[in-house]
Amino acid sequence: MSGTDKTKNQVLGPAPIAVLVQPQLGENIGTAARAMANFGLHDMRLVEPRDGWPNEKAVAASSGAHWILDRATVYSTLADALSDVNHVYATTARPRGMIKEVITPEQAGHDMRARIERGGKVAMLFGRERWGLSNDEVSMADVIVTAPVNPAFASINIAQAVLLMGYEWFKDQAETLGQQTPELAALDGPGLQTPDTRPATKEEFNGFIGHLEHELDIAGFFKTAAKKPGMLRNIRNLFARASLTEQEVKSLRGIVSSLTRAHEKRKEEREAKAIEP
Amino acid sequence: MSGTDKTKNQVLGPAPIAVLVQPQLGENIGTAARAMANFGLHDMRLVEPRDGWPNEKAVAASSGAHWILDRATVYSTLADALSDVNHVYATTARPRGMIKEVITPEQAGHDMRARIERGGKVAMLFGRERWGLSNDEVSMADVIVTAPVNPAFASINIAQAVLLMGYEWFKDQAETLGQQTPELAALDGPGLQTPDTRPATKEEFNGFIGHLEHELDIAGFFKTAAKKPGMLRNIRNLFARASLTEQEVKSLRGIVSSLTRAHEKRKEEREAKAIEP
Repeated sequence: MSGTDKTKNQVLGPAPIAVLVQPQLGENIGTAARAMANFGLHDMRLVEPRDGWPNEKAVAASSGAHWILDRATVYSTLADALSDVNHVYATTARPRGMIKEVITPEQAGHDMRARIERGGKVAMLFGRERWGLSNDEVSMADVIVTAPVNPAFASINIAQAVLLMGYEWFKDQAETLGQQTPELAALDGPGLQTPDTRPATKEEFNGFIGHLEHELDIAGFFKTAAKKPGMLRNIRNLFARASLTEQEVKSLRGIVSSLTRAHEKRKEEREAKAIEP
Repeated sequence: MSGTDKTKNQVLGPAPIAVLVQPQLGENIGTAARAMANFGLHDMRLVEPRDGWPNEKAVAASSGAHWILDRATVYSTLADALSDVNHVYATTARPRGMIKEVITPEQAGHDMRARIERGGKVAMLFGRERWGLSNDEVSMADVIVTAPVNPAFASINIAQAVLLMGYEWFKDQAETLGQQTPELAALDGPGLQTPDTRPATKEEFNGFIGHLEHELDIAGFFKTAAKKPGMLRNIRNLFARASLTEQEVKSLRGIVSSLTRAHEKRKEEREAKAIEP
């Protein structure tokens, strides 16, 4: 399928962000950029690329999608890469034993389109070549995306995963220009009925989780240090599923603060009663 | 997207044939084989591969999809490669000025599935890296398949084209067999991975909300009686969206209990410090 019309300018409209977590080979970063270009994606974010950045092998493998590599940004943590993002899709083929919504690339395409049209920023996570994303990284996403593949040969190259996600996103645009499909309407669930607020950014979300973790540490909620990471991941997944708005994150922080002060109120009441004649 | 289960045997059921016309690089033949394996394709036919056959670079690039390369067959003409085929799909991104039906990969997926179920043999044509298929080669196909791509960057690598076609074919199978349950489930509600637990009952959910409300009442969270119903509704909605499991409801109750006792822990620590010499 060749046939690029080089005279056409690249249009950098709102599109999903592609986040590559610890990519190992420059070639794969380059072919991922090419796949992004095929489907109008342009915001590439790299978390700790193994061989540093910029990378000449990436440029050579990008088949001319240099504007994506030129604009790519590098982060030292996944949390930093997602700080301004509202909704995150983790691509994975492995079952994770996590209580998190699992959708297909096609559904992700619809969902990303709808969220971007409402002004949201969405990002897709792609794991390292050798072993994909860690459970902690997956827990930072709102939803898992798993493509239907041959279970006896499920390993998809990063660029191929980027291609499938970009394809489904682009295809959805091509299909829905002008009209909204019933599937799209059905998928517009969380976050739609929030006229007075906006989806929380990951920075706001992580701020709440950090606040809760701090208070639970003080309260001795995590029985042992060994159990804490798994327990915290479950808590993160639970709240991530709710697709919180900025206002709801504030409310939850208010709830945590209130509960930690509940004891004071109880004490005041007891003392007030004790004083009564 | 890693996660191949190597213990599963490859099933070589009826599937579309992939015909690569004068492929130039062994690497591309190998990555095309890998893409075929991802979607249960197994019949690869090569017309005049530039560097001969077999090709070690193809094996190296196939990431273990060796059974496809081992069984690949080589032909000196496209006509020979298609002699036993009933219906042929030519993949191309360029306008051809030909009076021939043009369909999308998705439509091709449906169409191939239907023809194979009726006992037909179908083949997909992929052109050479540098300039795709000739008009004569396209004319040997029954239909042209063109993927929706960024018109300003339309050149797709052979393996990527094989991937998209294989994906749409496999996806169509998964839908037909009802295997892709998350896809169907998500149209009614979120498709959740729920290991070792079950969705919470409404009784359990309401028990948690009641518990939280009680503690928030004590903590003075609801500033006024007039504001309380609306605030409580928002809290209920937020947690309802998470589709909690029974285990998560228990965890949330544990969190509420812990937080309300956090003050005691703090006080203990202060007192312990005060006693230190």
